[in-house]
Amino acid sequence: MSTEPHNIEELVKQLAAKLMEKGWMLATAESCTGGMIAAACTDLAGSSQWFDRGFVTYSNEAKTEMLGVPAELIAKHGAVSEEVVRAMAEGAIRHSRAQVSIAVTGIAGPGGGSKEKPVGTVWVGWCVDGNTLTNCLHLDGGRATIRTSTLTNALQYLLHRI
Amino acid sequence: MSTEPHNIEELVKQLAAKLMEKGWMLATAESCTGGMIAAACTDLAGSSQWFDRGFVTYSNEAKTEMLGVPAELIAKHGAVSEEVVRAMAEGAIRHSRAQVSIAVTGIAGPGGGSKEKPVGTVWVGWCVDGNTLTNCLHLDGGRATIRTSTLTNALQYLLHRI
Repeated sequence: MSTEPHNIEELVKQLAAKLMEKGWMLATAESCTGGMIAAACTDLAGSSQWFDRGFVTYSNEAKTEMLGVPAELIAKHGAVSEEVVRAMAEGAIRHSRAQVSIAVTGIAGPGGGSKEKPVGTVWVGWCVDGNTLTNCLHLDGGRATIRTSTLTNALQYLLHRI
Repeated sequence: MSTEPHNIEELVKQLAAKLMEKGWMLATAESCTGGMIAAACTDLAGSSQWFDRGFVTYSNEAKTEMLGVPAELIAKHGAVSEEVVRAMAEGAIRHSRAQVSIAVTGIAGPGGGSKEKPVGTVWVGWCVDGNTLTNCLHLDGGRATIRTSTLTNALQYLLHRI
């Protein structure tokens, strides 16, 4: 059982060690975090050994064009949905040389929330060696807090899955 | 003449205002900053109005596959070169819906430096409405400082060009 660090730098170090042990590369697909996960990963010196690439798919068109998320899927379920985060995570694998991917799509606010999907609703998806898992977060706080909590949660979950 | 804020949040706000005034979208192509520029841009609420997508092309293969940077260009000039940053900036335009792009490739260290290209050598490129400009930075400090200075410099230059 892993320890559960909340410090982002420590999380990335542990993630790096696990990925290198397996000989796996990581790709990220980010909507609401807009590159924060990739930036946190590449903050660590030597990350080119395990970090392949990142897709910052902020617009719906970017999700479709960069990751192959079907436009109909976004139209049917919304960009913030389990279906879309799964397609993002799997698209990141298909469009990279990575064996592991992490994807996030959520509503960081202050706008964009609804009764069904309030601000703080974030879907996270992970693909690890051919298997995809997803999880829905319900986060409190302002935009910066929601984005940072998403980053921490996403890294923690991924660490547990590898 | 613009004022020259050094505060990243303020730089992004001014950049957002200029892009929205022109009706332009932005795409980023990042190597050594690894998503920091995209993350800083999307930190601002409402950034979906002017931020289209980001390419975190950490590996050479990612530069080629995501942005169309010719592998021969990387082999000939190295990933940290004027030729490659220009190809990254122009590739970001071709592979997005943006009218404006910013690209960076550099040596953040601590490893990877050489006599010709020491740690802190960073090429920055901007494409604005069909014109590409490049600039070489020679930055001091450790990895985190070099990455943050690259972010600030890149945003400042872009702000001046729009």
